[in-house]
Amino acid sequence: MSMVCLSDFEAYAKKYLPKIAWDYFAAGADDCTTRDENILAYKRIRFRPRMLRDVSVMDIRTKILGSEISFPVGIAPTGFHQLAWPDGEKSTARAARAMDTCYIASTYSTCTLEEISAAAPGGLRWFQLYIHRNRAASQQLVRRAEALGFQGLVLTADLPYTGKRRDDVRNGFRLPPHMKGDDCSEYGLPPNSLDPSVTWNDIYWLRSLTRLPIIIKGILTREDAELAVKHGVQGIIVSNHGGRQLDEGPATIDALVEVVEAVRGRVEVYVDGGIRKGSDVLKALALGAKCVFIGRPALWGLAYKGEEGLKDVLRILQDEFRLSMALAG
Amino acid sequence: MSMVCLSDFEAYAKKYLPKIAWDYFAAGADDCTTRDENILAYKRIRFRPRMLRDVSVMDIRTKILGSEISFPVGIAPTGFHQLAWPDGEKSTARAARAMDTCYIASTYSTCTLEEISAAAPGGLRWFQLYIHRNRAASQQLVRRAEALGFQGLVLTADLPYTGKRRDDVRNGFRLPPHMKGDDCSEYGLPPNSLDPSVTWNDIYWLRSLTRLPIIIKGILTREDAELAVKHGVQGIIVSNHGGRQLDEGPATIDALVEVVEAVRGRVEVYVDGGIRKGSDVLKALALGAKCVFIGRPALWGLAYKGEEGLKDVLRILQDEFRLSMALAG
Amino acid sequence: MSMVCLSDFEAYAKKYLPKIAWDYFAAGADDCTTRDENILAYKRIRFRPRMLRDVSVMDIRTKILGSEISFPVGIAPTGFHQLAWPDGEKSTARAARAMDTCYIASTYSTCTLEEISAAAPGGLRWFQLYIHRNRAASQQLVRRAEALGFQGLVLTADLPYTGKRRDDVRNGFRLPPHMKGDDCSEYGLPPNSLDPSVTWNDIYWLRSLTRLPIIIKGILTREDAELAVKHGVQGIIVSNHGGRQLDEGPATIDALVEVVEAVRGRVEVYVDGGIRKGSDVLKALALGAKCVFIGRPALWGLAYKGEEGLKDVLRILQDEFRLSMALAG
Amino acid sequence: MSMVCLSDFEAYAKKYLPKIAWDYFAAGADDCTTRDENILAYKRIRFRPRMLRDVSVMDIRTKILGSEISFPVGIAPTGFHQLAWPDGEKSTARAARAMDTCYIASTYSTCTLEEISAAAPGGLRWFQLYIHRNRAASQQLVRRAEALGFQGLVLTADLPYTGKRRDDVRNGFRLPPHMKGDDCSEYGLPPNSLDPSVTWNDIYWLRSLTRLPIIIKGILTREDAELAVKHGVQGIIVSNHGGRQLDEGPATIDALVEVVEAVRGRVEVYVDGGIRKGSDVLKALALGAKCVFIGRPALWGLAYKGEEGLKDVLRILQDEFRLSMALAG
Repeated sequence: MSMVCLSDFEAYAKKYLPKIAWDYFAAGADDCTTRDENILAYKRIRFRPRMLRDVSVMDIRTKILGSEISFPVGIAPTGFHQLAWPDGEKSTARAARAMDTCYIASTYSTCTLEEISAAAPGGLRWFQLYIHRNRAASQQLVRRAEALGFQGLVLTADLPYTGKRRDDVRNGFRLPPHMKGDDCSEYGLPPNSLDPSVTWNDIYWLRSLTRLPIIIKGILTREDAELAVKHGVQGIIVSNHGGRQLDEGPATIDALVEVVEAVRGRVEVYVDGGIRKGSDVLKALALGAKCVFIGRPALWGLAYKGEEGLKDVLRILQDEFRLSMALAG
Repeated sequence: MSMVCLSDFEAYAKKYLPKIAWDYFAAGADDCTTRDENILAYKRIRFRPRMLRDVSVMDIRTKILGSEISFPVGIAPTGFHQLAWPDGEKSTARAARAMDTCYIASTYSTCTLEEISAAAPGGLRWFQLYIHRNRAASQQLVRRAEALGFQGLVLTADLPYTGKRRDDVRNGFRLPPHMKGDDCSEYGLPPNSLDPSVTWNDIYWLRSLTRLPIIIKGILTREDAELAVKHGVQGIIVSNHGGRQLDEGPATIDALVEVVEAVRGRVEVYVDGGIRKGSDVLKALALGAKCVFIGRPALWGLAYKGEEGLKDVLRILQDEFRLSMALAG
Repeated sequence: MSMVCLSDFEAYAKKYLPKIAWDYFAAGADDCTTRDENILAYKRIRFRPRMLRDVSVMDIRTKILGSEISFPVGIAPTGFHQLAWPDGEKSTARAARAMDTCYIASTYSTCTLEEISAAAPGGLRWFQLYIHRNRAASQQLVRRAEALGFQGLVLTADLPYTGKRRDDVRNGFRLPPHMKGDDCSEYGLPPNSLDPSVTWNDIYWLRSLTRLPIIIKGILTREDAELAVKHGVQGIIVSNHGGRQLDEGPATIDALVEVVEAVRGRVEVYVDGGIRKGSDVLKALALGAKCVFIGRPALWGLAYKGEEGLKDVLRILQDEFRLSMALAG
Repeated sequence: MSMVCLSDFEAYAKKYLPKIAWDYFAAGADDCTTRDENILAYKRIRFRPRMLRDVSVMDIRTKILGSEISFPVGIAPTGFHQLAWPDGEKSTARAARAMDTCYIASTYSTCTLEEISAAAPGGLRWFQLYIHRNRAASQQLVRRAEALGFQGLVLTADLPYTGKRRDDVRNGFRLPPHMKGDDCSEYGLPPNSLDPSVTWNDIYWLRSLTRLPIIIKGILTREDAELAVKHGVQGIIVSNHGGRQLDEGPATIDALVEVVEAVRGRVEVYVDGGIRKGSDVLKALALGAKCVFIGRPALWGLAYKGEEGLKDVLRILQDEFRLSMALAG
């Protein structure tokens, strides 16, 4: 099987992962309309390619919140990497460092933050956070992440409750008992630990806990983008949780346009969801994103060959992105 | 078979109901374009989800014509419930009462109004009426319904003649001889008993028969909505009879918008047709409906497990509706 | 096999006709885009149904060029009816007379005009004409038609050359030697007898030959509609020859709108192509057609049971048309 | 197998060519969206057919850059014709001359320019050029082409790097060792010989080498069309390299419109990509192209029967084009 594009990794993962794990990673909410729209929306955007520009040398490095990365593609937070590969998030951390990009470790990691840090010292990492009913637990996580050298705090805003992913319900999805990270409350124990009463004011509380930049993830409208800026976040990830939360909202690449417009450069804007080709990265950047993050494709890379597989995925995206830039002029 | 969403009940009913009964419930007029459009139109409507709102407590109770129901989903009038479950409309009535919502009993019920009332005393019920050539028969039905405690009279306006449902014609659909409700004229005996000469003035006649509120069902245009208000109805159900009458008219959720606009709050507006998920309910409410009614999904629930199956269907819709509200902010 | 709608007749004809005959009747030019668009375009048109109108009595009779017909559906000119049924156009003429409607006999009939006339004396018939290189031949046909009591002359304007119907080319379609009407030049002998140099001025020539009203068939634009009126025709059939001539022109129901607008009532406008249901007839009339003509469905009816089959087709259309009118208010 | 339309040749080629050759000819970049869009975009363009015009005599000859051709369809530059037919480009040259049209020989030909010239002396030919890192090599090619009587120089502007054609990567596509033309660097040896730093100024350099007219190929925007005119080219081929370079740019027939508008007649504009029927040619001409060029269909013709097969393809297009003109009035 030759791995030529990201769909090849998807096909591999679908074939070789246990069904319950594949279903969990692939799941979208309800009819999966938004999950699929994330991809279709990219296809509706067309280039206006320009010719005869000198494309012999292209610099694709960029900076996010002041840190340089080798190209504008990072790893979005996704849960339970041990479902994809035995070493789990340790492999993810190593691949991200090797490819010189940013890895957002999920609260629902199956390795502890300490294990992730130890696996790839010096890598650029952000930590993704949900706010618990038990605020002390959240506070402790933030402090640990900061102490371990994570350089950003990503607050997920779109999960007051977990979306209805039918296959997970059918499969009775639970994390296998031998996998356990810092906080597997939703699927492990204890249930209902997330706080659905969180509001914008809790950004101030979070701010009081840490000096790390706060990036808010899950914004899809200009109104919320304006609120995010007003409440002092440093970055916005336009995201619909890979279509796993509310179904039939906008595709992220469509929402990006209105968020970028509302933000007017005051904070950095990123996007995740639906990136499958280097040209998708170029489109997102052309529409104002500073960087994109990949979720499922990273998991497919892990499922293929752990650290090496994820590096393959990133390399392909990098090559495709560079080629698209050259061909689009 | 795990019942996770309404489509699961549909699949069950399709598999286990006799073909002739399934076909009758599933039938749409002509090419079934409108039947299918009812569903597709919901998919074209997209949310603009808002984040970080306190969604820890949500009140989903509502009132229709002054009666409180537990959530804004009632049971639309559909015929011949014994085709789906031996106890027929008695089970429907019990499930509706148990879930604390409104059940609109059809003229074409396979239980008498007395049986329905006795099955679930105290439940909120409306009675759906066609006007007969023999006006005395209609008058008698209205009086019986009122005497039995039905709290609303739903006049169906879109059936001067029965739509052409090809499968029913092919199947030679007739109600089995052992099933018989109050008035199975169209499919039982006698045929041609409905009066195609009914006009808006007959609302006044109906008004003279009863003190019950009159709800008109089958309105799809602003012009008719204006006429309905002018003729003094208390409520409007935007409906195309589940796509079973005129094919290639508008989807109900699309028609709802213009009806709500025309009505300007003077009477309550409801909608049926195409509701398959909790998010559909939220969309209908966001577009101005006070409540929605489900037709085929209720029958699938009955076909699954009678009263319990219908309660399952309602519970799933309720949970999905609540979750959608939370995730949409 | 129960014959419930026109598609049932289509399925029958496809199953039982010799492939070469089915292919000939079904053929569209090139990719058959326009043939299929004729049908799809009807589906894009939606009703705004009105309720509570007295639809107990409906008059569906109409007049075309002064002659009354029982409902606004006539038989479009199509060739070679003996390919569908042994009695060919004689059966067509009988069915049209029995159903009290208009039959446009094609130049490419497999019965002579005399046979057609004798088969159904007194029926309302028009004669469809191509103009020959040999004008005397055309003149003779016109005079014979007039003498036989045909009441209109339909000049086909969209066939300077025959469209490219791939299946006919593959099949090497030729009329079987035992079938022969008045003028089977294109498919029989002699080839190339039609005159591609015909222009609007030839309407004057035609006018000079006959007192019959002239109806021009094949108009698709407002510009040509204006020219047709200016050159003194009595009627226009908006037609694309069933999608058999130029592929990727407009659907006839779409073209009807601009033709009706241009004509402003100065002459009668009819339409053919894509009529498959009674509601299609209603749509065409609502958009300004005085009457519609059916082509392939008539052939399917013939293929099913000759005169009786065609009567079945017309009866179904009539019933569906009447029901649509009632349900649309 | 009867060859009635170009799709028949495509089916033949797909069936009989070695998979690796078929894949190479069929390949599009990435998801092949643009390759397929080239065809779909033609289908979205509709004719407004006019009737009763004298179409008995039609002149379909045209001139491109002063040379007359028998109809406005030439052969676009495509590589490696020996993959389709043993005689390769020699057959192509012969067919083009026989049909009295223009053949643009590719830099990636599997016959030398001398062989091509000798095969069909006197034929109208242009030479397609990439600019090498080794400018002397390019200069030599230009001089050879000019000396051999090629009458135009086509500079391909859209290939600073080769697009990502997944099947070619999977197949490890390489030209078979026994095939070798003048310059098979990209697929033969040496790799990376094309210069990605080429800019508009290199047009002046090219101008200094030759008196031949320069046609630039690969323009898709009004901005680049303006630059092309400004830099003194004689012609523009609107092209996206058959969808083989940047995926998800515009279809060529859509881009043609804006290029023609920008050019305002100052230079001739041609188009390639997606031509599959004579009516496509008519559409392109109606939208301002002086002539179209066919790529893959020419290869299918070669694959069918070499010179004779390509002549068949051209003849079919010619007949269809003529018929479309007549039927569109």
